[in-house]
Amino acid sequence: VCVPAAKHGYAKTEEAEASDTIFANDTASSSSSSSSYLGNLLVVPMDGSHWVGMKAIAQEMGRRGHRVTVVIPEVSIRMGPGKYYDTEIHPVPYDRAYIDSVASAHKDMMQKSSQSFMVRTKKRFSHILKVIDLIHGTAESLLFNDSLISHLAQQGFDAVLTDPMVPTGSLIARKLGIPTINLLRGIPFSLDVNSAGCPSPPSYVPRFFTGYSDKMSFKERVVNTLVALLEPLLSRLLYWRFDQMAYQFLGEEVGVAEVLSDSAIWLLRIDLILEFPRPLMPNMVLVGGINCNVRNPLPEVRSWVSGEFGFVVFTLGTMVSDLPEEKTSIFLEAFRQIPQKVIWRYTGQVPDNVPENVKMMGWVPQNDLLAHPGARAFITHAGSHGIFEGLCHAVPMVMMPIGADQHHNAQRLADKGAGVVVDIFSITTESLLQGLNEVLHDVRYKEDVQKLSALHKDRPVEPLDLSVYWTEYVMRHKGAKHLKPAGIDLNWIQYFCLDVIALLASVVLLFGILIVKCMKLCFRKLSRKRKRD
Amino acid sequence: VCVPAAKHGYAKTEEAEASDTIFANDTASSSSSSSSYLGNLLVVPMDGSHWVGMKAIAQEMGRRGHRVTVVIPEVSIRMGPGKYYDTEIHPVPYDRAYIDSVASAHKDMMQKSSQSFMVRTKKRFSHILKVIDLIHGTAESLLFNDSLISHLAQQGFDAVLTDPMVPTGSLIARKLGIPTINLLRGIPFSLDVNSAGCPSPPSYVPRFFTGYSDKMSFKERVVNTLVALLEPLLSRLLYWRFDQMAYQFLGEEVGVAEVLSDSAIWLLRIDLILEFPRPLMPNMVLVGGINCNVRNPLPEVRSWVSGEFGFVVFTLGTMVSDLPEEKTSIFLEAFRQIPQKVIWRYTGQVPDNVPENVKMMGWVPQNDLLAHPGARAFITHAGSHGIFEGLCHAVPMVMMPIGADQHHNAQRLADKGAGVVVDIFSITTESLLQGLNEVLHDVRYKEDVQKLSALHKDRPVEPLDLSVYWTEYVMRHKGAKHLKPAGIDLNWIQYFCLDVIALLASVVLLFGILIVKCMKLCFRKLSRKRKRD
Repeated sequence: VCVPAAKHGYAKTEEAEASDTIFANDTASSSSSSSSYLGNLLVVPMDGSHWVGMKAIAQEMGRRGHRVTVVIPEVSIRMGPGKYYDTEIHPVPYDRAYIDSVASAHKDMMQKSSQSFMVRTKKRFSHILKVIDLIHGTAESLLFNDSLISHLAQQGFDAVLTDPMVPTGSLIARKLGIPTINLLRGIPFSLDVNSAGCPSPPSYVPRFFTGYSDKMSFKERVVNTLVALLEPLLSRLLYWRFDQMAYQFLGEEVGVAEVLSDSAIWLLRIDLILEFPRPLMPNMVLVGGINCNVRNPLPEVRSWVSGEFGFVVFTLGTMVSDLPEEKTSIFLEAFRQIPQKVIWRYTGQVPDNVPENVKMMGWVPQNDLLAHPGARAFITHAGSHGIFEGLCHAVPMVMMPIGADQHHNAQRLADKGAGVVVDIFSITTESLLQGLNEVLHDVRYKEDVQKLSALHKDRPVEPLDLSVYWTEYVMRHKGAKHLKPAGIDLNWIQYFCLDVIALLASVVLLFGILIVKCMKLCFRKLSRKRKRD
Repeated sequence: VCVPAAKHGYAKTEEAEASDTIFANDTASSSSSSSSYLGNLLVVPMDGSHWVGMKAIAQEMGRRGHRVTVVIPEVSIRMGPGKYYDTEIHPVPYDRAYIDSVASAHKDMMQKSSQSFMVRTKKRFSHILKVIDLIHGTAESLLFNDSLISHLAQQGFDAVLTDPMVPTGSLIARKLGIPTINLLRGIPFSLDVNSAGCPSPPSYVPRFFTGYSDKMSFKERVVNTLVALLEPLLSRLLYWRFDQMAYQFLGEEVGVAEVLSDSAIWLLRIDLILEFPRPLMPNMVLVGGINCNVRNPLPEVRSWVSGEFGFVVFTLGTMVSDLPEEKTSIFLEAFRQIPQKVIWRYTGQVPDNVPENVKMMGWVPQNDLLAHPGARAFITHAGSHGIFEGLCHAVPMVMMPIGADQHHNAQRLADKGAGVVVDIFSITTESLLQGLNEVLHDVRYKEDVQKLSALHKDRPVEPLDLSVYWTEYVMRHKGAKHLKPAGIDLNWIQYFCLDVIALLASVVLLFGILIVKCMKLCFRKLSRKRKRD
């Protein structure tokens, strides 16, 4: 039943092969305004699920004839070569075993919690630190690889495409003096929005981890404002090591925030169907759903999924492909009680008692399966790619957020009626069954997700085409300087006109005092006169 | 030499005929995502040049199979029927002679100014009042035409397309309970931006008539902030009669600003090639250049313009098609001294001494002429449509702004090197010749306008297609509620979190006072103790 995915090295994986065929069908849908300009693009991607959208653009750019070079560490979670781009491999100070151990930390956190809240929080925090450390190590091994950097400098790249959540690519772009195109879901503590000079009034733009909506009570606005005030400090703390790297690598007194504010275009993997409407800058382009191009399902799966009751797709993202034994049996017990078939992405040891309707595979063609008319439900961790695939193909979701933006994504989708949220840490066979049966049998979920899907897919240009368009735009015009707001160059006193307000307030105050003094003087004279009379 | 345009009634004018052919060539370029949905659109246009873009959308919507109804007053400057839409005509309390007299006021203002500045300003102000009065009269005659309004209410329209600078259409949309699509260049005193809930930090978003750039000195920021603070009051003053109409027509206590804040989509006829980059809202779509589709030039003109030295196009917009005699001869004298041919849109009495290289016509196919490779220069009043036609076809411009946004447009284009500005009120043959020769002979103007043109035309979707797309979007989805920012529903104290700031400041102050009191207390005790010792 189990087909473990190739996990070692970066030889073409099953997934890499499959996703090469993304573009086989959509030649017709390519942008009408594609020009004859062919350029030279450097891609500095981020590992994990962030690679999905980045790879889609790299592939499509290469397919259109541009020279595309992707810089990849010699060991990574899922990055690898592709049909339409070259790779530059750089050594890193860790091996596959270490990456696997970091990745499997999630499994440990899923253990049935006899552990106290404090212990779990401590574990989670130490895991985050490990991930951050891994990121720093990867970045340093690239930035301070002098021979690779000078090799890249000689390639005459027109632009860098990168995910600035890890600002390695942004630093390289600045070093090479070429413009940057950012593809991202977002950066913690609004570093992206603030660097782009984009206003985010705390009165109705909820800060990310507050869990607030755009309609806040007074108390919520107080908290939200405090968080907004703290954000610059928090992002300084989060990126302090990158700030140091920037200084060392660039040889100028410049931090990550300033480097990012030079970005030409921000491709944001969001959609206002799910996010609260907020101000945007002209160089921000929304490309949520960039990963939903339909590929051809694997033939073996196609025949297996066809059946009267349809099927359920179950994946928990790149980082959680394995669960502790007792958690696995909770899921299997629930699946045994439904007539639908279940395809589960699972890289761990497959238990003996797997029900007949369940197929556990090391890698599943998630997007293709969701596009299949037989897909009845999608059990997902609500990662930023998965939710768009579910949304695009209008499959109601049972969402089990684990971390990062997943709680936010799940809540937004649940608010819109597209699915239910089930807590994966305290899950039982009953709670899972209840959630699953709700989305399987209550037609309102299907109806709501269909409405949302229609709105999401109603856009003048496909997200992938739009991303490629703006990437080419930046390459053609050597940046997009005319889109850079002047506000970026102001300090915060100037930006918020606090000096102007101080002046105006002083003038008003001065007038007030003068008037009061005058009145006092008149009153005194008047009273003196009266006394004399 | 002179072919006067049909000026009376709204029988199909030459222009109307010509512009019907806009769409003959561009079927292939129509949006790839056109759906099979066919709807019912009401168009409430604004007269004058504002009609140009509106008509383009109305025509294209009709051509795509939608039912389109345009409401037009029985007397107007340039609105009239078209091939692809129906018209509803409503009576107005003025006649053609009155409109002509208002339109010809410009001619009077062009008189060689032996008149003092005060007299000229007074004249200009009285002309503006006359135009505003005309607008109010037209609006009232439509809004309070009960039979027409109830007829419109029965038509089952899906949406209203309108120019909200005159908010008649917006009021009708609210009455009918249907969503609005706005097409506009802008509304004085930022009523559009403020109603859309769009932030405009006064630190780098210059207010319209200040003439500032996005890089302001402290003094400029003070003035800009003061203007920004006054804007709500100024727009209340400008729209007070419409506020009254709204109350009377809708029967609810609602002003124009509130009605506009309900708009589904704002199609803005601007381009960031010319405007300073600034925050935008997700329901704002930039469609500058909507009017640049190339039509076929009139055959008679085509043969005339071909020649070794090329030709100059000279138009001063809808409102100024005629000049005082002495001003006309200044132009003719200058044209006599250049080898280029000149095509001049001119509806007045043609003088006897017109040079052989000059053709004065009551209507010219401006956009087609500019698209002709022989076009060497464009003498224009820098209206919002003309500049995009010049920009689109990369023709260097001699700009003679008269009023409205024209000074701003001219300055922005001149700053970017696309042309020169000449003051039309103090013009002499020499100053005109100097400006004209500069753009004709200094290749930098041509190079700069070509660069700008390339940037302007580099966009994922054509402005007309994009406008039609969002119009259809609003009709398909009965609005675009998910794009409406929550900030619109807050009052300004909440919006700017002034209550939160007050609370936080109080808390800080209280802590400060407490600390000072504590320190005093300690100090006192300490000094008492010392005294006792």
